[in-house]
Amino acid sequence: MAASQVQDEAFVTLATNDSYSYGALVLAHSLRAVGTTRKLAILITPNVTSRMRQLLSDVFDSITQVDPLDSHDEANLALLTRPELGITFSKLHCWRLTQYNKCVFMDADALVLQNIDDLFEREELSAATDCGWPDCFNSGVFVFRPSEETYRGLLQCAVTQGSFDGGDQGLLNTYFSDWATKDISRHLPFIYNMTSSRAYSYLPAFVRYGDQVKVVHFIGIAKPWQFTYDTSSGMVLPHESMSSHHELTFIQAWWDIFVARVKPKLEAAQTAQTMSS
Amino acid sequence: MAASQVQDEAFVTLATNDSYSYGALVLAHSLRAVGTTRKLAILITPNVTSRMRQLLSDVFDSITQVDPLDSHDEANLALLTRPELGITFSKLHCWRLTQYNKCVFMDADALVLQNIDDLFEREELSAATDCGWPDCFNSGVFVFRPSEETYRGLLQCAVTQGSFDGGDQGLLNTYFSDWATKDISRHLPFIYNMTSSRAYSYLPAFVRYGDQVKVVHFIGIAKPWQFTYDTSSGMVLPHESMSSHHELTFIQAWWDIFVARVKPKLEAAQTAQTMSS
Ligand SMILES: O=c1ccn([C@@H]2O[C@H](COP(=O)(O)OP(=O)(O)O)[C@@H](O)[C@H]2O)c(=O)[nH]1
Ligand SMILES: O=c1ccn([C@@H]2O[C@H](COP(=O)(O)OP(=O)(O)O)[C@@H](O)[C@H]2O)c(=O)[nH]1
Ligand SMILES: [Mn+2]
Ligand SMILES: [Mn+2]
Repeated sequence: MAASQVQDEAFVTLATNDSYSYGALVLAHSLRAVGTTRKLAILITPNVTSRMRQLLSDVFDSITQVDPLDSHDEANLALLTRPELGITFSKLHCWRLTQYNKCVFMDADALVLQNIDDLFEREELSAATDCGWPDCFNSGVFVFRPSEETYRGLLQCAVTQGSFDGGDQGLLNTYFSDWATKDISRHLPFIYNMTSSRAYSYLPAFVRYGDQVKVVHFIGIAKPWQFTYDTSSGMVLPHESMSSHHELTFIQAWWDIFVARVKPKLEAAQTAQTMSS
Repeated sequence: MAASQVQDEAFVTLATNDSYSYGALVLAHSLRAVGTTRKLAILITPNVTSRMRQLLSDVFDSITQVDPLDSHDEANLALLTRPELGITFSKLHCWRLTQYNKCVFMDADALVLQNIDDLFEREELSAATDCGWPDCFNSGVFVFRPSEETYRGLLQCAVTQGSFDGGDQGLLNTYFSDWATKDISRHLPFIYNMTSSRAYSYLPAFVRYGDQVKVVHFIGIAKPWQFTYDTSSGMVLPHESMSSHHELTFIQAWWDIFVARVKPKLEAAQTAQTMSS
């Protein structure tokens, strides 16, 4: 632990299974690589394996097991074409981390490219625009203040109003409904949550602002850990689901961290397991 | 002219040819249909035909001919895959309409569904987020104050800094560069400039907020007037470029106005022309 580490502020992520844990590991290593002075915390659910918990504990300062929360809202999730995302309600548990004064939640499919500790100067609820409907914020990166009261309020909102997309994002946008109109300082610049397909949507803007990107967020069904990495060349193989070579570059950056920081430990753990069995 | 018409405020659009003039006509009729109390003004370039000017004069309060301005920026326009958009620099002429105190510029490919006169309560430069890169605003709908000084400043900016996308949007975002961070009241809700393909991107949000949409903006290469309308059924034919049946519904709404308000006059003008030749 660095001497200058801030004790009461943390980056928080979530993994409900081993796949998303790969994302969480790379995210955490990317935060360490840019020299964050904040704690790293993760919420996991019971079915994350003990081998994975071991790997997580190498890089996270704290691991908190939580009960899975699921919206079970099949109708709205179908609109999103993401039936699996009801489980993202588990994210709400982050408000219960009251040992911290302020936190930044980050999805496990995010990758940090430049230091973002300045996010802790922002107030709850700060988030970047969701490109799908820009009066909503994207819930992949947000600044919040842990509070049991807010947690209860969110659960109450889930029961009374539900989530319009069946996932955490619809619920959080309903609860923090003044985000779009109230305070510009709650609007994080897009470079703090750059959804990786954007390079394609408005390429001139990407060419102009792309080098300022601090966080890439791999939204959608195709996650970085699902692509094929060629160990001999050290390159991710292009895939038709990628919108541009820029997206490939970001996925490559994810794998570079995975191969350097996660894979060796994974292999060591595997060897240990083989030897002990 | 309605007795209650506000004399010093106007909606302004632009058409550099007869095709976009179809858009401008439908836009103007859609504004009349929702009972705007503001003036309707259009900028045209010399190659809009005299027959078209006649039709425009039926619905617009004023027609101003301007010299075409073109960025001639082939490199950046290629990034946008829209080589034709250099001409949108002509939009800058709107700042010279100093007979008005405040204006709302609207692209000719926009369609008004509900009254938006409340936009005149906003200040320059108010605009909605561009979904392609949400720290930029979309220049299809914006509130501005005509001013020769601003016009000169914009031309100066075009010469010294250029437009990062080769069109007006890149330039305006460079000139009004504090839009993203300065004042939340300059951020128009997305319902004032709903790009028609958004229904597809985040369908649950569209289902939730879609009935609040006040302005649909048909961005991209496929404009409403380019689709096929079946006169016998009164229906627009679906086309593979449409992202969803919601998009089809909006294009149908465009054609409903075109057929009711523009086509009869077009045919009358054609008959008159045939008779006089
Ligand atoms: O099965 C799942 C699905 C999601 N998540 C967590 O919830 C976040 C949001 O889901 P996802 O990133 O897949 O949604 P998207 O960003 O694609 O909308 C993930 O990043 C994970 O932190 C998880 O742990 N398990
Ligand atoms: O050849 C052209 C291209 C554009 N425009 C005007 O410039 C606006 C912006 O262009 P467009 O709407 O095609 O851009 P998009 O919204 O698709 O980015 C149009 O709505 C018209 O008002 C025009 O008059 N002639
Ligand atoms: Mn995500
Ligand atoms: Mn347009």
